[in-house]
Amino acid sequence: MHRTLASELPARVGQTVTIAGWAHRHRRLKSVEFLIVRDRTGLAQVVLPPSAVDSVLATLVEESVVEVTGRVTANPAAPSGVELVDASVRVVNPAQPAPLDLYRPTLTASLPTQLDHAGLALRHPARQRVFRAGAAAVRGFRSTLDDLGFVEVHTPKIVASATESGANVFAIDYFGRPAYLAQSPQFYKQTLVGVFERVYEVGPVFRAEPHDTVRHLAQYTSLDVELGFITDHRDVMAALRSVMAGMVAAIDPSFVDTEVPEQIPSVHFVDALAMVGKALGEDLSGEPDLAPAHERWLGEWAKREYGSDFLFVEGFPAAKRPFYTHPDPSRPGYTNGFDLLFRGVELVTGGQRLHRYEDYVAALAARGESPEPYEAYLSVFRHGMPPHGGFAIGLERFLARLTGAANIREVTLFPRDLTRLTP
Amino acid sequence: MHRTLASELPARVGQTVTIAGWAHRHRRLKSVEFLIVRDRTGLAQVVLPPSAVDSVLATLVEESVVEVTGRVTANPAAPSGVELVDASVRVVNPAQPAPLDLYRPTLTASLPTQLDHAGLALRHPARQRVFRAGAAAVRGFRSTLDDLGFVEVHTPKIVASATESGANVFAIDYFGRPAYLAQSPQFYKQTLVGVFERVYEVGPVFRAEPHDTVRHLAQYTSLDVELGFITDHRDVMAALRSVMAGMVAAIDPSFVDTEVPEQIPSVHFVDALAMVGKALGEDLSGEPDLAPAHERWLGEWAKREYGSDFLFVEGFPAAKRPFYTHPDPSRPGYTNGFDLLFRGVELVTGGQRLHRYEDYVAALAARGESPEPYEAYLSVFRHGMPPHGGFAIGLERFLARLTGAANIREVTLFPRDLTRLTP
Repeated sequence: MHRTLASELPARVGQTVTIAGWAHRHRRLKSVEFLIVRDRTGLAQVVLPPSAVDSVLATLVEESVVEVTGRVTANPAAPSGVELVDASVRVVNPAQPAPLDLYRPTLTASLPTQLDHAGLALRHPARQRVFRAGAAAVRGFRSTLDDLGFVEVHTPKIVASATESGANVFAIDYFGRPAYLAQSPQFYKQTLVGVFERVYEVGPVFRAEPHDTVRHLAQYTSLDVELGFITDHRDVMAALRSVMAGMVAAIDPSFVDTEVPEQIPSVHFVDALAMVGKALGEDLSGEPDLAPAHERWLGEWAKREYGSDFLFVEGFPAAKRPFYTHPDPSRPGYTNGFDLLFRGVELVTGGQRLHRYEDYVAALAARGESPEPYEAYLSVFRHGMPPHGGFAIGLERFLARLTGAANIREVTLFPRDLTRLTP
Repeated sequence: MHRTLASELPARVGQTVTIAGWAHRHRRLKSVEFLIVRDRTGLAQVVLPPSAVDSVLATLVEESVVEVTGRVTANPAAPSGVELVDASVRVVNPAQPAPLDLYRPTLTASLPTQLDHAGLALRHPARQRVFRAGAAAVRGFRSTLDDLGFVEVHTPKIVASATESGANVFAIDYFGRPAYLAQSPQFYKQTLVGVFERVYEVGPVFRAEPHDTVRHLAQYTSLDVELGFITDHRDVMAALRSVMAGMVAAIDPSFVDTEVPEQIPSVHFVDALAMVGKALGEDLSGEPDLAPAHERWLGEWAKREYGSDFLFVEGFPAAKRPFYTHPDPSRPGYTNGFDLLFRGVELVTGGQRLHRYEDYVAALAARGESPEPYEAYLSVFRHGMPPHGGFAIGLERFLARLTGAANIREVTLFPRDLTRLTP
């Protein structure tokens, strides 16, 4: 049989076609029955005569897989303006009753229930849309970088030592030896700047986050970028602007109500702190970081002053940045590290990195750390690394911010957290 | 400074430009010095007057990062027909002597030495090319599937139970509970067929392979595809043909000397066994699988008969296929599972899967297994799953086959195996 998709029906009026999908909704009225079939392109309405008590339809459970053959007829009252009439229904795979109602406009089940039954809950059109938007955003991420000469790489997720910090790392038994799940591809993407100059990776990263919050996952998808032969972090910020624009542009415009300005406004950390302190009547001088309330104020300020949902804060103090962050040569104690805020919430972190071996040794020593556990990664810095920098976008965080999701689990297919290991 | 890339030089003859990259090769002759600079687009030759003993150039170590300003001049004897003259060199980041010579046409160091110094060895142009081809192939994989309406997904790599079999699985301490690294996204991609109908994932999979072979890695990159509303495995094979054609077409043609035929020839397992047995004078009736020698013979046969490097073998016996494989309804003991051979070696495995809950329970029972450990994944099959199937392409295996690499580690950026956990 040739399968016609729901989205193709408006162009098939008058023809007899076969559609296939899930019995999204089945309603038996006295004189007529309605069957809504869901496929990957949308919903299709089927109108049937009342079925006999002993018929297949009488016992049809929603979410059963069905094939329906019928004549396409225009009906302005039907979804998408057409419906199938004179139809016959074949049940391909009958379903048992589901613990969730998928046919309502929104899912009414609690989030934990949705997550327990993720394979079902994700079928809801509203939930599907989030992940289609995510897939589009990642496509935009890659195509932007491909056009800029970046090479996609795949790096080890099992590593010999923690990459970001000793805490929050999952231990694994690696053929009887201790090993860890990678918290980021940081050293690998830097190493590969020495090979390809410009690299990106889309892959899982792992954080043994011991707190049960709406913002943290034990596994998330990191969109990692690193580029060499930069002058300073401003070149990294320019690449991030392009990437962000590519990601937003790739998403269905009905799903996203923001745009990335040609030039994202930028403010230095010190100036940001001064502005916020003045506005809120607080003495923030010497603060090493921005509090959420400060970020919110800055978001509103960027919207008011520049009409922008996006704002760069650059020049963060060294104390709150990873040891591999390049200092600001003109401002002791501050770095070439930046955050990108979206509507007053941190969306992306990035910066210029150190590129000289001796600078790494000194940076680790300044933190009371030995270079020894990092030696396998640091040795390449002895052999000619260009000035470079990069950033990482958490895909789920990006989607949560864009959709205003209250809990990051809403925008994760099968979340992993302190308690959740299935499905 | 505006940086000119090596590939742009032929269009800049007569101009003074600045290039930046690595000191790939430095040769001091009596009356002249040559410096070859490598950047992400290729090599550029710089001609310099003999340097003073105390100059920067006199102590220049290869792989140092340099910036060179000079005038572009045509010279048919130079690589790409141009060279930089009247040049000045600035050393951006000096290198220490490398344990490998990167300027020779091929790397002469042993594979273990190359892997120990992967961050350096990968810089060799011949090694870079493999991974650029890999990135292109993955781009072709995705764009083919995007055009066919597939949705890219990201699934958990930490799971509660083994997916493929109880063996060869890495154990992890998950907040004090036992968990495992996913051997494949098999159940997730099947579950998501129930959501999006057509899905793919590019991600790491993990096998605690206890044998030190040239073919096995503890982590590799799996290109996973699954599609619903199929008639049988032939629809999956058709999708794989498109994907394979898209992957091969995306690779630089100078790197790949094969093509994917419009219709890949296919032979049933039973007929394949009979042909091979007859040709080799062996009684193979009842054999449950193809031996490497049999696959080689079939590869030569496909080339001879169809001029094709590719050959499908379909209908493998159930005994050698995973429990989720759909049986061949017309041939008891055989399945709708297939292999794709490339030049007589298995490249891809795939097939139609079971789509009814009760079939899973029966299939597990037939193998003496309880459905209980799989329940979190199987429950979705109670709720309407369409007939579906899929396949998985190991990216490194694909690259090894295509390049004829003797060891899969040659086509892996940072391999993980029984002994190798760094870099």
